[in-house]
Amino acid sequence: MKILRSIEAADLEDIAIGGAILGTGGGGDPYIGKLMAQQAIKAHGPVKLVDVAELPDDALVVPVCMMGAPTVMTEKLPQGDELINAFRALEQLLGRKIDAVLCGEAGGVNSTTPFVVAAMTGLPLVDGDGMGRAYPELQMVTFTMHGVSATPMVLCDDKGNSLVLDTVSNAWTERLARAATVEMGGSALLAFYSMDGATAKKAVVRGTLSLCAQLGETARKNRNAPQGPVKAITDLLNAEVVFHGRIKDVDRKTVGGFARGTASFEGVEEWKDHTFKLEFQNEFLMAERDGEVLVTTPDMITVLDAETGMPVTADSLRYGLRLVTLAFSGHPEWLTEAGIALVGPRYFGYGVDYTPFVANSAD
Amino acid sequence: MKILRSIEAADLEDIAIGGAILGTGGGGDPYIGKLMAQQAIKAHGPVKLVDVAELPDDALVVPVCMMGAPTVMTEKLPQGDELINAFRALEQLLGRKIDAVLCGEAGGVNSTTPFVVAAMTGLPLVDGDGMGRAYPELQMVTFTMHGVSATPMVLCDDKGNSLVLDTVSNAWTERLARAATVEMGGSALLAFYSMDGATAKKAVVRGTLSLCAQLGETARKNRNAPQGPVKAITDLLNAEVVFHGRIKDVDRKTVGGFARGTASFEGVEEWKDHTFKLEFQNEFLMAERDGEVLVTTPDMITVLDAETGMPVTADSLRYGLRLVTLAFSGHPEWLTEAGIALVGPRYFGYGVDYTPFVANSAD
Repeated sequence: MKILRSIEAADLEDIAIGGAILGTGGGGDPYIGKLMAQQAIKAHGPVKLVDVAELPDDALVVPVCMMGAPTVMTEKLPQGDELINAFRALEQLLGRKIDAVLCGEAGGVNSTTPFVVAAMTGLPLVDGDGMGRAYPELQMVTFTMHGVSATPMVLCDDKGNSLVLDTVSNAWTERLARAATVEMGGSALLAFYSMDGATAKKAVVRGTLSLCAQLGETARKNRNAPQGPVKAITDLLNAEVVFHGRIKDVDRKTVGGFARGTASFEGVEEWKDHTFKLEFQNEFLMAERDGEVLVTTPDMITVLDAETGMPVTADSLRYGLRLVTLAFSGHPEWLTEAGIALVGPRYFGYGVDYTPFVANSAD
Repeated sequence: MKILRSIEAADLEDIAIGGAILGTGGGGDPYIGKLMAQQAIKAHGPVKLVDVAELPDDALVVPVCMMGAPTVMTEKLPQGDELINAFRALEQLLGRKIDAVLCGEAGGVNSTTPFVVAAMTGLPLVDGDGMGRAYPELQMVTFTMHGVSATPMVLCDDKGNSLVLDTVSNAWTERLARAATVEMGGSALLAFYSMDGATAKKAVVRGTLSLCAQLGETARKNRNAPQGPVKAITDLLNAEVVFHGRIKDVDRKTVGGFARGTASFEGVEEWKDHTFKLEFQNEFLMAERDGEVLVTTPDMITVLDAETGMPVTADSLRYGLRLVTLAFSGHPEWLTEAGIALVGPRYFGYGVDYTPFVANSAD
């Protein structure tokens, strides 16, 4: 298998930051994600990143993921052991050796969890994921649209408990795994959506981990550039700055295993006298400007620190922070009828239809 | 293996009624339990009841059970298929043939669920259970006191979803299985606490199903006797009538997968001018008379219709019903320190120590 790139511990800095940018507010804190994966790579050696096209059609590919409210993940650090336990238990259940590790979603933690497993097992890691971003629920992956079952799925906690789920639909997997995760204290580690190489070639969003690395690198290299990092990131993503302002209020609660809430902003500079609001359920799902819906899922909303360009998760929104919000088009697969049914605004209970967001490149 | 007795469909009438008497308010509705088991026996033939002492030491014995709030079980009839699916899935997981079926708890439904599996598989059914009564939580079995692990456990619902649990303690099994059961709509079918024959001989409460049959028969044969059925049942159980009265209020809610509440009574006849109160969480857990705690778990509180002697579950308590409450001593194994720690009043959040109830035989 041709190796795209060998990933060293130092590379995880950029990947975690880039993951948090694509994480659109969710997917975990990049600092924690980075530490976890760096520790595994230092102990076990670098990770071989491969393109999905390199996989033999009959290869067995398994994504790993952390599940739970990011609010909890930050306080309850995941251990590499729980991830590898879930992965090995699923391997045993499937009765054959897994050939490659896959990323479930992009995010500060969930872009890095597969590196932990790839480092510990020595298996190649596919450069891609099941979302091209982060979404709050398990069934919200391109894998679902390609008929891949989330089960058999293994779910492990930090205490040594494990569950094997076998469900009639990926939506049922989400319901039962969420209930177990809440009971386990709000976070759990998963191995699921096992598929063969032929399916992975169709179902995986390609290049997500390379894009994470590129985004992180862009943020880092432009931190002190004259135009600043925000402009460079905006350009790379073909995004538009839809607001620049200070947080004046955050209403947040952890409910049903999710961090849900609303953040309200007051504008600064060119956005003075304008108002802005973000709705989130782990991820940013909808943005309103001056009382009108501006962006919804499947399009992407990401929030950066106005000075440093560092991504800000929904979990770290605090009164007074000065932030820039970017919006850009979602991965084409999410913009289909099937995609909108899975992750569109009506699924999340917002009373609006999806209207494509088109970034104004003149901005 | 010497067969104690062959159980025909007609015998289930008594067993279900007796099960509900020992069910102390929980364990499911006997009418539903009877129908389920009768249907299975009519389709597959009678069930061979065996004494636990007959089991070879290396026999594999597996209890089956229905889990959930009885309030839900009554409206969502269990299907034989779900039980047999759980049982067969556990058998496959354990990698060897199961030799005998065991009852988890006595109750209107849960005394009869093992008959469904025994009839469908042709396996012998052990005359005993893990409680000698019903209790609301999974870890509350004599099996726990004998070091038997509840897991691996298989939990199935009516939709085709299944879970395999592997937990660090039986208390964790309860938490995770309860969360899944709530998500599955409030009821689920289980196969768990697999053990060998040698362990079963120590851990099983012997003779529970025969006692159910005897209690049901006593109730039936004395329905029109001069002294009435209540007296006959009271005598058979070495119980005491602790109250006779009408329900004046029931405060009930289904919360966390349990039917919880309080029933208040006003006395009739010799109990006129006295008050009485029952606390329940699926089962009757505590009785207060004239404001004083009179009986708590592990001692047994059962409620009979004053006229017919038929057991009344906590779920069927209704304003105006005229009922007799019996109390009697719990199985000796529950009266130990370990037993009281598992099921005593403090576990359920009542601020009293367990004080043994001694039936006044002069009553």
